[in-house]
Amino acid sequence: MQNMADKLLEEINKKQNPSVVGLDPRINQIPEFITKRNLEAYGNSFKAAANAIIEFNKLIINAISETLPAVKPQIAFYEQYGPEGVRAFKETVDYAKEKGLIVIGDAKRNDIGSTAEAYADGHLGEVKMIEGSMPSLNADLITVNGYLGSDGLMPFIEACKKHGKGIFILNKTSNPSSGELQDKKTEEGKTVYEIMAELIDKLGKDLTGQKGYSPIGAVVGATYPEQAKILRNLMPKTIFLVPGYGAQGGGAEDVVPCFNEDGYGAIVNSSRGIIFAYEKEPYKDKFKPEEFHLASRQAAIDMKKDILDALKKNGKLPEGWNA
Amino acid sequence: MQNMADKLLEEINKKQNPSVVGLDPRINQIPEFITKRNLEAYGNSFKAAANAIIEFNKLIINAISETLPAVKPQIAFYEQYGPEGVRAFKETVDYAKEKGLIVIGDAKRNDIGSTAEAYADGHLGEVKMIEGSMPSLNADLITVNGYLGSDGLMPFIEACKKHGKGIFILNKTSNPSSGELQDKKTEEGKTVYEIMAELIDKLGKDLTGQKGYSPIGAVVGATYPEQAKILRNLMPKTIFLVPGYGAQGGGAEDVVPCFNEDGYGAIVNSSRGIIFAYEKEPYKDKFKPEEFHLASRQAAIDMKKDILDALKKNGKLPEGWNA
Repeated sequence: MQNMADKLLEEINKKQNPSVVGLDPRINQIPEFITKRNLEAYGNSFKAAANAIIEFNKLIINAISETLPAVKPQIAFYEQYGPEGVRAFKETVDYAKEKGLIVIGDAKRNDIGSTAEAYADGHLGEVKMIEGSMPSLNADLITVNGYLGSDGLMPFIEACKKHGKGIFILNKTSNPSSGELQDKKTEEGKTVYEIMAELIDKLGKDLTGQKGYSPIGAVVGATYPEQAKILRNLMPKTIFLVPGYGAQGGGAEDVVPCFNEDGYGAIVNSSRGIIFAYEKEPYKDKFKPEEFHLASRQAAIDMKKDILDALKKNGKLPEGWNA
Repeated sequence: MQNMADKLLEEINKKQNPSVVGLDPRINQIPEFITKRNLEAYGNSFKAAANAIIEFNKLIINAISETLPAVKPQIAFYEQYGPEGVRAFKETVDYAKEKGLIVIGDAKRNDIGSTAEAYADGHLGEVKMIEGSMPSLNADLITVNGYLGSDGLMPFIEACKKHGKGIFILNKTSNPSSGELQDKKTEEGKTVYEIMAELIDKLGKDLTGQKGYSPIGAVVGATYPEQAKILRNLMPKTIFLVPGYGAQGGGAEDVVPCFNEDGYGAIVNSSRGIIFAYEKEPYKDKFKPEEFHLASRQAAIDMKKDILDALKKNGKLPEGWNA
């Protein structure tokens, strides 16, 4: 049976594109023609902000759905607006799935026991209703934080098994201070991120699908290519979600170690660099604010080319792909 | 100026009670007289679940607000119901504050840069609107996860400074497998939880208020009293949020090491043991389901007595308190 790793790899292969766009809508970077009409319709309210986000996201999704296998809405940018914001998140997830995209909810959730179960039910599975249960936020995969250890992760893994979903566990994150904890070397000579990698590998081992990958993935920052090399060896069957490309400073060469030799096993994220491309060179001169989604499409195509070129140069372009 | 630690300690002192009730509403444990009427009014919908939760919480809050300094809604149990669930969370936060309670949002949020800022804005500060900004979920404190290091925590700390709020950073958590990562000993001879404690101490050092405590607290499980002793020494100015009492197996003696010698510096949480007391002995025989909130009040009073007795026995009862 196909697991979520198979589904994700199938989409990546179909579009010959191992990248994902982060839908992180910052209200003050959404073009004014959208915010203005929502302001007029709903006043300066959470509803206006939420509707502007939905409108913005839908145009982006329409523009990139043929190029990209997946989108990654970052729930912080929605949740901050309360109930209205979570409605915008939910509508974004539903719309992206309707357009054939895999949806990775970037939630970094973490808790234990029945609380972790509630998160897993809400984001991936089915929530307990007054009578019976039903799906709620219903993403395909979400990111989770493993600081609490395996019993904090098991409820998410159970949801993956039961509902055919997936997770990405934070491992070596892309930010400057990620090493404060994650790089600490233990008595056994392993770093904290290596211990986390062994845990991720162990938790996913028995869940590999038709293509040999587990639905229990890892978040490995593009900003740490040396560590990515080590992690690639520790977790051969794990898909890496790679943030840090673009705005955070990671280049295409930096993401290459995240891929296995056959060119699979990683998906690279860019958020601001794609969705707000219309504000930046070289897109700023070519696209009007009203064409922001076309700028995003062009930026997504350019990102794909950048990554495929680097894979090709390093002998990692997947068989049958064109670059 | 008063910081959030001062405010929390003031409430603890006023009520002579260093405990907090976790509002973790599990829909199938909410008394049927509440779920049934919401089912009849709204069908088997998210709205019915959310309204049942609000009704349940309000009765609990009314019953315990004179006994307790604070409540701790666990957002997982709300968020799982999507927009309606987050509405129930928000209404719970607002109602509890109206009743004079300090509200700790148990969210365990974590991210970096502008994403962490969005969480901090949404939960503690003010969110960017189409024009200007305004408060949104607006808890007094939230829990956060520090796996990403200090630049993942700084946006939350900035919100604490700017808006007079507080956070509790996960340190040594109460669950059985918390040691998989947190207990690993590093080359320098320190465990991961000790390194995290030093970071928490450092981040809060310059923010101490009138009573000598910082608004940057730590989550330390009642199930690990030995580690709590070590952590109490490492973070003398840090308030501990102590889960694990009751349902998770921690007893009153186990929480004593979390308190400083003067009997301050910790707040002990119980969730299921209080809010669903009506289902369990010795309350089950004394209270009908329609009196579930009165059972909760009695359980909260019993918990207070249990903790104060243990503090007294160990010479840690705060000056002027009766036990």
